[in-house]
Amino acid sequence: MRIGSLAPARPEAVAEDAFERARLLVAEDLARVNRLVVARLESRVPLVAELARHLVAAGGKRIRPLLTLLAARLCGYAGDRHIGLATCVEFIHTATLLHDDVVDGSDLRRGRASANAIWGNKAPVLVGDFLFSRAFQLMTADGSLRVLEILARASAIIAEGEVAQLETTGDLTTDEARYLAVIEAKTAALFEAACRVGAAVAGRPPAEEEALGRYGRHLGIAFQLVDDALDYAADPGRLGKGVGDDFREGKLTLPVILALARADGEERAFWQRTLEQLDQREGDLERACAILARHGTVGATLERARAYGEEARQALSVFPPSRFREALLGLVDFCIARAY
Amino acid sequence: MRIGSLAPARPEAVAEDAFERARLLVAEDLARVNRLVVARLESRVPLVAELARHLVAAGGKRIRPLLTLLAARLCGYAGDRHIGLATCVEFIHTATLLHDDVVDGSDLRRGRASANAIWGNKAPVLVGDFLFSRAFQLMTADGSLRVLEILARASAIIAEGEVAQLETTGDLTTDEARYLAVIEAKTAALFEAACRVGAAVAGRPPAEEEALGRYGRHLGIAFQLVDDALDYAADPGRLGKGVGDDFREGKLTLPVILALARADGEERAFWQRTLEQLDQREGDLERACAILARHGTVGATLERARAYGEEARQALSVFPPSRFREALLGLVDFCIARAY
Repeated sequence: MRIGSLAPARPEAVAEDAFERARLLVAEDLARVNRLVVARLESRVPLVAELARHLVAAGGKRIRPLLTLLAARLCGYAGDRHIGLATCVEFIHTATLLHDDVVDGSDLRRGRASANAIWGNKAPVLVGDFLFSRAFQLMTADGSLRVLEILARASAIIAEGEVAQLETTGDLTTDEARYLAVIEAKTAALFEAACRVGAAVAGRPPAEEEALGRYGRHLGIAFQLVDDALDYAADPGRLGKGVGDDFREGKLTLPVILALARADGEERAFWQRTLEQLDQREGDLERACAILARHGTVGATLERARAYGEEARQALSVFPPSRFREALLGLVDFCIARAY
Repeated sequence: MRIGSLAPARPEAVAEDAFERARLLVAEDLARVNRLVVARLESRVPLVAELARHLVAAGGKRIRPLLTLLAARLCGYAGDRHIGLATCVEFIHTATLLHDDVVDGSDLRRGRASANAIWGNKAPVLVGDFLFSRAFQLMTADGSLRVLEILARASAIIAEGEVAQLETTGDLTTDEARYLAVIEAKTAALFEAACRVGAAVAGRPPAEEEALGRYGRHLGIAFQLVDDALDYAADPGRLGKGVGDDFREGKLTLPVILALARADGEERAFWQRTLEQLDQREGDLERACAILARHGTVGATLERARAYGEEARQALSVFPPSRFREALLGLVDFCIARAY
């Protein structure tokens, strides 16, 4: 909490602070979402319930359901339905995470040391399907065709985005436009849908749903840009995420795309070997980071994130000032400032 | 076609004949479903469209959408909506097939020789998600919450059934009841849902939807029982499917479960080595088939399939005789007789 002169000086503390304030504002709603998440994971098949509970109940930031809750409140919604719909959003997110994790066997084994070979490959796919189906059951019980439309569309776009990302993996011709199309689909579509659902449940006119959708989409792009920047710069201890995951998988993210555009022959050969051919050796990640630093592309990526964050802020200007609008603006700060 | 004394004498020809007659009865509807399948697979991401088209448009028997079409017609439905809903059923089926295929890397490589390691594991999962999402988009556009309820529930049950099957894999304590619960979920639930959707789109009273649901569920169980029997008996050339897939994967299907109940010490040791420990050697499949033959468990499995087929027939007795009822009864013959 930020109390007068005790306000934290470090930018990352400011970010955490904005995030915590947003969470506190709908703390009771969030607690209800968490309870519903656990309750709706019940299954006749013990393994499903166990795995799903482990994955979903274990947590995460819950930023997407938070968007639904805040958007609904911003729109003056005073009922109960946003709880169930925020839960749907979280289930869809978790399902996509699970399916995203299904990479080659070795990665899976690293993540799931105790599971045998069949289990390790199959369970995340099937439990993801279960969560996805549960989400659609919850939406159907809610009964809003508009909400179903928003989230079914987002789910299709996410799947397309993930495939588009596969296509760009190791492909050094990937340009910024193609990269942006990928992150808009794989990340921003669900941020946008989460916000739209909040407006839809409140029965607000299309212009407000549109504005919240624009906020969510730009926030999602900013969020992913920061994520991709951090992958070449983060302090692994602080974020619970390793540096270099994208590099190791040969993903073409913006820091690399911008560096490729400025690469000399030697650098180009380096990217070809490491990302195109996935022939990586000791010290390659450090060299990649050094090249990015030389061209300043991590900073340029964060600069773009700030611009998208600004777009997100602008989108909210159609709403009158309120605690909820402040909280949503604070989430932009959170998404950007966590990079520092 | 069966024309007087030219009627084929072989049972499998009778089965094919019943199936072809059912298809011919709604040939125009089926052609529209096929066109819609192709049209709704369009995607901004070329790889998605290409893969999905390859997988769905390549065909298969289309027995599940056929059930929706025939059930709708049996209920006197004269509109167009059953075309889109039959397409949803086919998309959900294909999505589950794709996800079912995601087993260990070696199996995937066998099925997809040209794909590299990342591609081979990820694409089927993501394109499955895409098909699944498309199905829910189509249903939402149709606008029936009852249909959404039926198919979202079936999807969740299928995922649970697949996980339950994982749990029984290699587990020699699996009994007949547990096996039946698995196939009811993984196979019969979608047969049931496909039929229920036909009644729902026609706006028929609950009793008729219930009767069609019961028909579909029992037909689905019979279908899977025959499938599992054929896996230890089929002529690979004729069915386009190898014998012994279940054996190689350590699946506990009814022919083995029944044989285990009658096993002596030596046989039990054999099943422990081959299915529990998956330590399989040259000649093991032949020995497994010989053990099943000695106990007559493939025949006993088919006997149960016939009993479920009879239940399916009985369920249709609430409907007055019609060409559509005949066709649905013929599909029972098809499901059973293809084993001979």
